[in-house]
Amino acid sequence: MEDKLMLMIPGPTPVPEQVLLAMAKHPIGHRSADFSRLVADTTAGLKWLHQTTGNVLVLCSSGTGAMEAGIINFLSAGDRVLCCENGKFGERWVKLAQAFGLDVDLVQAPWGKPLDPEAIRAKLEADTDKQIKAVILTHSETSTGVINDLETISGYIRAHGALSIVDAVTSLGAANVPIDAWGLDVVASGSQKGYMIPPGLGFVAVSDRAWKAYETATLPKFYLDLGKYRKAAQKDSNPFTPPVNLYYALDAALKIMQREGLENIFARHAKLTRATRAAIKALNLPLYAADEVGSPAITAVAPVEVAAEDIRSFTKKHFDILLAGGQDDLKGKIFRIGHLGFVSGRDVLTAIAAIEAALTGLGYSNFTSGAGVAAAAAELAK
Amino acid sequence: MEDKLMLMIPGPTPVPEQVLLAMAKHPIGHRSADFSRLVADTTAGLKWLHQTTGNVLVLCSSGTGAMEAGIINFLSAGDRVLCCENGKFGERWVKLAQAFGLDVDLVQAPWGKPLDPEAIRAKLEADTDKQIKAVILTHSETSTGVINDLETISGYIRAHGALSIVDAVTSLGAANVPIDAWGLDVVASGSQKGYMIPPGLGFVAVSDRAWKAYETATLPKFYLDLGKYRKAAQKDSNPFTPPVNLYYALDAALKIMQREGLENIFARHAKLTRATRAAIKALNLPLYAADEVGSPAITAVAPVEVAAEDIRSFTKKHFDILLAGGQDDLKGKIFRIGHLGFVSGRDVLTAIAAIEAALTGLGYSNFTSGAGVAAAAAELAK
Repeated sequence: MEDKLMLMIPGPTPVPEQVLLAMAKHPIGHRSADFSRLVADTTAGLKWLHQTTGNVLVLCSSGTGAMEAGIINFLSAGDRVLCCENGKFGERWVKLAQAFGLDVDLVQAPWGKPLDPEAIRAKLEADTDKQIKAVILTHSETSTGVINDLETISGYIRAHGALSIVDAVTSLGAANVPIDAWGLDVVASGSQKGYMIPPGLGFVAVSDRAWKAYETATLPKFYLDLGKYRKAAQKDSNPFTPPVNLYYALDAALKIMQREGLENIFARHAKLTRATRAAIKALNLPLYAADEVGSPAITAVAPVEVAAEDIRSFTKKHFDILLAGGQDDLKGKIFRIGHLGFVSGRDVLTAIAAIEAALTGLGYSNFTSGAGVAAAAAELAK
Repeated sequence: MEDKLMLMIPGPTPVPEQVLLAMAKHPIGHRSADFSRLVADTTAGLKWLHQTTGNVLVLCSSGTGAMEAGIINFLSAGDRVLCCENGKFGERWVKLAQAFGLDVDLVQAPWGKPLDPEAIRAKLEADTDKQIKAVILTHSETSTGVINDLETISGYIRAHGALSIVDAVTSLGAANVPIDAWGLDVVASGSQKGYMIPPGLGFVAVSDRAWKAYETATLPKFYLDLGKYRKAAQKDSNPFTPPVNLYYALDAALKIMQREGLENIFARHAKLTRATRAAIKALNLPLYAADEVGSPAITAVAPVEVAAEDIRSFTKKHFDILLAGGQDDLKGKIFRIGHLGFVSGRDVLTAIAAIEAALTGLGYSNFTSGAGVAAAAAELAK
């Protein structure tokens, strides 16, 4: 049905009506006092969301642009870095690091499994002459629905002295990422995720330690030179024309988030995750990641007796619900249910009901009708 | 008065209501068939606007991001380039080229004057061993309201064999920029100008000759690697999450532009420019650029007996009209009237009437009341 689409993917995520309408306002001049107030307000909101007193800088870019900024501002060609990879976005870090001539060492885990903090600790402890300048990793691995133990890993990185450079694209605004408390150095994210706004803004939080590294980093940069953004931020401004209407959206969304409160936001995502996982189990479908490491943003399901892509096609065709597919090697092997951002228990119930209908429609009978919805409802009622 | 702002600056420019409302639609998945159709449609529209059969790639960036992409994809560190500079955005090209380690030779003209094509020709003819890999210039110099003779300069560049890399940020959609006919290689622009949509999209048109240079260019790149965008464009897609809602705006704006027609768009901008310039002359205020080189996007005025910033403050305070100020050395010395994008004769009449009121209010009496409006109206009536 036209205009009836329901997004249950890890991004773009659903956008609240008041955020959509905020974007439809006429742009104002980005060098005006009114816009400076908007920059000041949203910056305060971003620091609240990132739980930091340091800089949180706003780029006109996708999340990948924010990730690239996290590399090129703090490192020099030839620098040794430790990339941690357990999915497609971990791979993207490796590709990014290699594109800029970094000397990449790797810690890997199989897709669907979490990074092993002890493997990272061992690598760092073996690096007695401190050649590793940065440890680069993904917090919530969107491709597999696994969340890595960033707090523990960050502790090991701090003990070593390297910078931590983190993709928090699908964890910020869904899971606790207390940047200052965990001592994270560079944290990249994007607007179309927990922020509940459309794509187009990238965010980079930068610690004082990272700014020290910035002073000696020599990778060439201009548009993504965070020093320019820091300087402009001191005047509540931007070095280059910012996406004014997406700032309206950011402002509206941060206000919604602040009214809900960080703890409630994290609790909601945790509950939606439990409800989704309970439902999938009740449908006797294999979860791709274990409960203990399930991402609060997305749940990946690896059906065996019925094709993942057929389930996605069915829910799209009959119910206008968009589920995410698998990426790269996982294409056709998993489907992923996004429960990130502007998503409520009602949405999870709806998606599970549609998945049940799809399973039935596709001839899969290894479950009791209604069991998924009931399991989700039971978790939501807790 | 709240929400009554009228933008007469060179960007962001005013946005049509249907474009604003298009942005307020819920985002769809950027890997969906529906979004691919949107990419295909907007790509066709962009090729029409750029008058090219080559690639026009869409970035999530400001115009500066598009400019950077124009450098890093086609050049290598140490390459000699000829930067042509006659204003702030020419200076930005120089800074960009230097940031990426290019060997920059310069042709300059004073701010407010056009580039001298013969000076560029002389430099190119003297380069008999073809060390100059690219000539980098600004078409419409937004900081001064001067348009450079790109057609002639492009001819000289083609005769030499270097690539042309052009900032057409405030000329595309206002003046004729027939990319194929003029043999331009790399042309960068941004959404918040002639496109009539809010900031957030960058565009880069790339010729076959430029793609050949891409194959051997070694500057590091990832997020702005146009090869990735070209590859994705073959499938009507994007390498990284695109700003979906700005694509809605782009689609709506291109349809408006196509209904108006390229010739009519250019004629409208030329007429608005003539009307603005006639009015300023009738007010006995000095124009900063000569008639023959006046940009179709913006007219700079250099008042002597009354302070430029006072005029801007007056029109903002009393009439909610935002005029642009001078930048850098020109701060306080000029004000600039944007007449770019979604601007009609009515807007120019309005701005001139407000400027007249400001002049009177500020005690400037060296004009006949109504003379500016009458002169503008006379030009508009032609």
